[in-house]
Amino acid sequence: MPGHKPLKIMFLSPVGYADSDPIFAAMAAEHKLPGTEVHVTSLPASEGGFTHIEYRSYEAMVTRGIIRATRAAAREGFDALAIGCFYDTALHDAREVSEGMIVTAPCVASCEIAASLSNRFGIIVGRRKWVHQMQSTVREHGHEHRLSGFYHVELGVNDFQKDHAETEQRLIGAGRKAVEEDFAEALILGCTMEVGFYRDLEKRLGVPVIDPSIAALKRAEYAAILKRQCGWVPSRKWSSEAPPEDEIARFGQFDTGEPFGNRIVVEAA
Amino acid sequence: MPGHKPLKIMFLSPVGYADSDPIFAAMAAEHKLPGTEVHVTSLPASEGGFTHIEYRSYEAMVTRGIIRATRAAAREGFDALAIGCFYDTALHDAREVSEGMIVTAPCVASCEIAASLSNRFGIIVGRRKWVHQMQSTVREHGHEHRLSGFYHVELGVNDFQKDHAETEQRLIGAGRKAVEEDFAEALILGCTMEVGFYRDLEKRLGVPVIDPSIAALKRAEYAAILKRQCGWVPSRKWSSEAPPEDEIARFGQFDTGEPFGNRIVVEAA
Amino acid sequence: MPGHKPLKIMFLSPVGYADSDPIFAAMAAEHKLPGTEVHVTSLPASEGGFTHIEYRSYEAMVTRGIIRATRAAAREGFDALAIGCFYDTALHDAREVSEGMIVTAPCVASCEIAASLSNRFGIIVGRRKWVHQMQSTVREHGHEHRLSGFYHVELGVNDFQKDHAETEQRLIGAGRKAVEEDFAEALILGCTMEVGFYRDLEKRLGVPVIDPSIAALKRAEYAAILKRQCGWVPSRKWSSEAPPEDEIARFGQFDTGEPFGNRIVVEAA
Amino acid sequence: MPGHKPLKIMFLSPVGYADSDPIFAAMAAEHKLPGTEVHVTSLPASEGGFTHIEYRSYEAMVTRGIIRATRAAAREGFDALAIGCFYDTALHDAREVSEGMIVTAPCVASCEIAASLSNRFGIIVGRRKWVHQMQSTVREHGHEHRLSGFYHVELGVNDFQKDHAETEQRLIGAGRKAVEEDFAEALILGCTMEVGFYRDLEKRLGVPVIDPSIAALKRAEYAAILKRQCGWVPSRKWSSEAPPEDEIARFGQFDTGEPFGNRIVVEAA
Amino acid sequence: MPGHKPLKIMFLSPVGYADSDPIFAAMAAEHKLPGTEVHVTSLPASEGGFTHIEYRSYEAMVTRGIIRATRAAAREGFDALAIGCFYDTALHDAREVSEGMIVTAPCVASCEIAASLSNRFGIIVGRRKWVHQMQSTVREHGHEHRLSGFYHVELGVNDFQKDHAETEQRLIGAGRKAVEEDFAEALILGCTMEVGFYRDLEKRLGVPVIDPSIAALKRAEYAAILKRQCGWVPSRKWSSEAPPEDEIARFGQFDTGEPFGNRIVVEAA
Amino acid sequence: MPGHKPLKIMFLSPVGYADSDPIFAAMAAEHKLPGTEVHVTSLPASEGGFTHIEYRSYEAMVTRGIIRATRAAAREGFDALAIGCFYDTALHDAREVSEGMIVTAPCVASCEIAASLSNRFGIIVGRRKWVHQMQSTVREHGHEHRLSGFYHVELGVNDFQKDHAETEQRLIGAGRKAVEEDFAEALILGCTMEVGFYRDLEKRLGVPVIDPSIAALKRAEYAAILKRQCGWVPSRKWSSEAPPEDEIARFGQFDTGEPFGNRIVVEAA
Repeated sequence: MPGHKPLKIMFLSPVGYADSDPIFAAMAAEHKLPGTEVHVTSLPASEGGFTHIEYRSYEAMVTRGIIRATRAAAREGFDALAIGCFYDTALHDAREVSEGMIVTAPCVASCEIAASLSNRFGIIVGRRKWVHQMQSTVREHGHEHRLSGFYHVELGVNDFQKDHAETEQRLIGAGRKAVEEDFAEALILGCTMEVGFYRDLEKRLGVPVIDPSIAALKRAEYAAILKRQCGWVPSRKWSSEAPPEDEIARFGQFDTGEPFGNRIVVEAA
Repeated sequence: MPGHKPLKIMFLSPVGYADSDPIFAAMAAEHKLPGTEVHVTSLPASEGGFTHIEYRSYEAMVTRGIIRATRAAAREGFDALAIGCFYDTALHDAREVSEGMIVTAPCVASCEIAASLSNRFGIIVGRRKWVHQMQSTVREHGHEHRLSGFYHVELGVNDFQKDHAETEQRLIGAGRKAVEEDFAEALILGCTMEVGFYRDLEKRLGVPVIDPSIAALKRAEYAAILKRQCGWVPSRKWSSEAPPEDEIARFGQFDTGEPFGNRIVVEAA
Repeated sequence: MPGHKPLKIMFLSPVGYADSDPIFAAMAAEHKLPGTEVHVTSLPASEGGFTHIEYRSYEAMVTRGIIRATRAAAREGFDALAIGCFYDTALHDAREVSEGMIVTAPCVASCEIAASLSNRFGIIVGRRKWVHQMQSTVREHGHEHRLSGFYHVELGVNDFQKDHAETEQRLIGAGRKAVEEDFAEALILGCTMEVGFYRDLEKRLGVPVIDPSIAALKRAEYAAILKRQCGWVPSRKWSSEAPPEDEIARFGQFDTGEPFGNRIVVEAA
Repeated sequence: MPGHKPLKIMFLSPVGYADSDPIFAAMAAEHKLPGTEVHVTSLPASEGGFTHIEYRSYEAMVTRGIIRATRAAAREGFDALAIGCFYDTALHDAREVSEGMIVTAPCVASCEIAASLSNRFGIIVGRRKWVHQMQSTVREHGHEHRLSGFYHVELGVNDFQKDHAETEQRLIGAGRKAVEEDFAEALILGCTMEVGFYRDLEKRLGVPVIDPSIAALKRAEYAAILKRQCGWVPSRKWSSEAPPEDEIARFGQFDTGEPFGNRIVVEAA
Repeated sequence: MPGHKPLKIMFLSPVGYADSDPIFAAMAAEHKLPGTEVHVTSLPASEGGFTHIEYRSYEAMVTRGIIRATRAAAREGFDALAIGCFYDTALHDAREVSEGMIVTAPCVASCEIAASLSNRFGIIVGRRKWVHQMQSTVREHGHEHRLSGFYHVELGVNDFQKDHAETEQRLIGAGRKAVEEDFAEALILGCTMEVGFYRDLEKRLGVPVIDPSIAALKRAEYAAILKRQCGWVPSRKWSSEAPPEDEIARFGQFDTGEPFGNRIVVEAA
Repeated sequence: MPGHKPLKIMFLSPVGYADSDPIFAAMAAEHKLPGTEVHVTSLPASEGGFTHIEYRSYEAMVTRGIIRATRAAAREGFDALAIGCFYDTALHDAREVSEGMIVTAPCVASCEIAASLSNRFGIIVGRRKWVHQMQSTVREHGHEHRLSGFYHVELGVNDFQKDHAETEQRLIGAGRKAVEEDFAEALILGCTMEVGFYRDLEKRLGVPVIDPSIAALKRAEYAAILKRQCGWVPSRKWSSEAPPEDEIARFGQFDTGEPFGNRIVVEAA
């Protein structure tokens, strides 16, 4: 990066479960720019030991942790933060308290990339349960007219990495349906735990396949570059206004306890 | 009500601040059906002493409390629950864990009523800050094509009940703008703390004015009646699926501590 | 109801055919609140002896009768009127002349309920013929993004009550398709003559099934309660303006002849 | 026209009031093709002596007459029929029973023309009362994204032809607002009784001004030409299905009495 | 036509390939009004000898030629011009330099007709490749809510006229799918080279089938009639503003070389 | 960048006018990453000496040149290309022939950034003329629901750099209107020739101001990084299919003549 200080990116896994952090750290090490420092974090056990947040009610339990983590990351001087769940959990909430740090997330990051490479794309998810909420998110992001559909493979978040051969076979089946029956021109993997499969899927299916964890990381890094070079930081006007610090202090809920349960630092080169 | 057991409604103020509970209890006492029992509750101090949740990040801090309260209410046998904030905070999240209890909220309840009485309505809010999120909510509910606009009166949630004359004057000014300049045919008060003003506004402005606290309470009561008479309870299929109880138990976050910080019971007649 | 005078609801079957009136009266007797008085009415023979209004041109023939009936009901002091056809025939027209009486109809009433119990629902209709118009109605009401689709069972309005076993079998087949193939989470029966089947369908299909006749009746009763307790009556501003009485008198078409061909009164308890 | 038989167009004024018929007949005589025969008709007094149908409830009273007139026109061998009201009153209803005759109306005809001459247009109406319904109609026709807005001049349908200088002055004022403040590139006069002003408005405002009566007449004539030369007549499939003749006969409402109250024939040259 | 001078219509085939011009000339001769003069033209070889423009990049190569041809046609005194490609290639660009001449194209012309004859229609195209762009065009025109879908028959533009029996068989197969499976009530042939099949398809499928070449020609003729009789010519206000002539001259690209590569004149009778 | 070969980006000014190229080269030199090589190019005089393409017909004249330049850039091994006009001229056309090179443009790039920093933004353009087309583009990109509006300053493309003080004053005036009256939270400068003003505007207005030239350059660089690190290149499936090379050769229009009129190379560090 242009300056001398490394870009600082946080990849926050919004679960109280650190087992996947090394997977994301390996992904980050492989995909970040040399001058970027990435911290892969997850939530503390005090926020609940959620191993996944497939349910809206699980998300609702961890948003508090996301806000605390966002605030802590901003205070630590991170340039950008990626929330590591394809629901883009608490994205707008976190943006409100991110100060000069940009916040992004996998769904919006993936849709931007897919839209630049194709006119129509499908999203492969684990369970039908997820579809309604993700469709609302894609609509809010402005990409609904590009969707060929959602395709579920009957796997939960914690199942994707159990049997790679089985997972890959199911993802290929769903991808083929999207491309051949519904005329998708690109695919998005609709869960950050689908990490690691995109290259094989691309080879098998002949269309771009977007990995949402990588997309979120790279979108965060892109935002960090824009911040450094152009000074583009979040608006704090109208709906983007942050809460007043004295009120935050008075309510006393934001800065209590350790915000992270785990942290793996991937250093800049 | 047809049966013998009273309808049980909870009106949950999603703040850790009980000062407004008597206002809502008085509203409930005045507006409930005789055979309805209403519990006005708010969140425990352990969830943060938020006196308002005007900010998205404040909402994100209290969603955990809303989930716990919803779950507790369902277990206590409530027929329906109204979440007392015009953001309809955590409505879909709460519905997921409400079991056989119906969950509703002020924005959706008010829009349904306004749409049945007029073709176009305006929403009077406290601050411009709120508009973007509320507009998304109204769009998601399906009423955006009926909106004449949002009108802010430069008052925070905790200001509405401070100086009634001043508040009323501002609400009238905003309402007049909506009706005369933007052709609104009805008005919605876009904050549950705007409670108590609707009748005077109606007299002054000559159009229906919907009070969102009353709307939420009555919509909950209506849902309770439908449940009792027709057996209509929430779907648990596809996106409406609830999390598995064993997993909830394992994560250990849902049923810990006292879910309510305050409770006023308005008895059935 | 809180006061002493019973709530007065009219359920108007917009056909010149009284044979179904007892079915609706039985439905009303079973589902109304004790303090509610329901009049089930249909149109006079002078408006044509339509046994159904499946065709737009049939609807166009009976709108005159609906206007006259609405006006008569308002004059008789009814609190609310439900138009008993899932096309929501002449809903906006009738609202214009309803004075202080609220007018509702089955489609809007059913969609509101289904949307409170699920995120996505299907509508089971008699014939494909109906779909285009009903889809426009659902879109106008604001619920199109929740639709899984329409499912027709190749039965006309007057066929549903002929062979209950056959009807039920077809409704179950259509419902299963909606739920299993198109991921509907709830169902609406898209014809008031599908009355009587919802409970069995719910048992068989495991999702909420909304009966539109009951929904319309209960929505009218809910509106009547809101009128009594909150004073919420239709707006008469801008597009909701009523025609001037002297002009109505001059045109001489509104108050001629008997507005009802049949009336069954279901008394308040 | 190609063949030898003149094209037969009916311009149906859906009111029971013949005073404007000569105005429309003069318009037709001036604007039809030589080989076209135009019958300007209005409804019989038995359908109510409505001098205008500004109210939805007035429309609801005359739809029966429109259906009867449509059916009669089809039986008389008309090629196309234009319903002479900018609400496009009963357009879809009439199409159902038009057999091989095409039915059109002023709003859809005007929007098609304005969209071919500009990217954005405004509609000048008499009273604000009309706007909500017309906006729904424009949306249904598919032109809402082209609207700069509606502009009302505080004149009723029966006022436009009273004081031409006053009317013109108001139309110019509204048109100027549309063009200069809201960037309209063309204008539509949103009432068939605004007939006669478009040429002067065009000169004064410098943008195309569409007269809806002429638009409806010419769109009907265009449809008639397409019918004669290409055989394009209305679909009768699915939602376009017509009611069965035996049922129509049984209900006995369609072919009773004289369908027209007045008729002026403008002969082919 | 009313006046004495024939209506002058140009049908411009936006390819540098004259082989299809006689087909379009025969179509024009058969379908124009007697008093209409039609010039069927195509682009000069200097603009590239494109035999079709199925690809967006091919279109991008010929837009220059379309602009030059449009300008030349306007200067020659044509009343209206139809661009002979179902992509409606360069429609808005050409309108900008058409002076007092109206420009139309097959997709918009066909949709207007289909919408007047049915509530829902399908479009039969050659290859899936075309669909995304055409769907955007249909959406921009405002007809997307009427679409049952696009149906491709695996034929390129230059294949349709090779084996008529084979083409017809495929069109019938696609049309049947649209009507029977997706409930289309009318069909549009989505390529001007599908000319010649519509009558047989109508007979076989029992629904209106719109030929886009004829639709474009007749829509141009209709526009020409409106221009002559009502003076309705394109707006030149705001986004419809034409470039200044002195700048056009300075850039020196518009009026160089012969604009047409071929011309067949179909005389007025 | 991770590998050793510099990222190669082309910034193509789609005019036949090299005077602005040094401005863009200076912008690129200041804003690119060290390891990125940027070529700023414009079109050859043979494609017309357009100094701007404010008119659709001007765009239509240069699309041929854009296609040729895109193809040449792909052949030269560029990783990504940014089309330097806020109309995003020929974006989809160019993508079709870009082979493994990603194509982006200022409008889409700016909207993505503005949406990541705010919930609602305004676009400051030169002339009202541009608005309709740009609004369609923003809608197609999926950002229309975030627009506060377009604000024109009555300057043409070639005027922005004439009197910097005057330009800045006008941009500030428009920006203030957007922020204060229409509640914009960020601004986009809607013309690549508005380059150079964003920092001062940000200081004066207190909201993020996106420079579209920088946005396009950086989005191209981001795409290049994703290509190198993840292998994400354009889909060639369905609507993204490229034309066959043998046909391109046969038509003989794509690879003739020099594709660039000017080129400034900004070397990698």
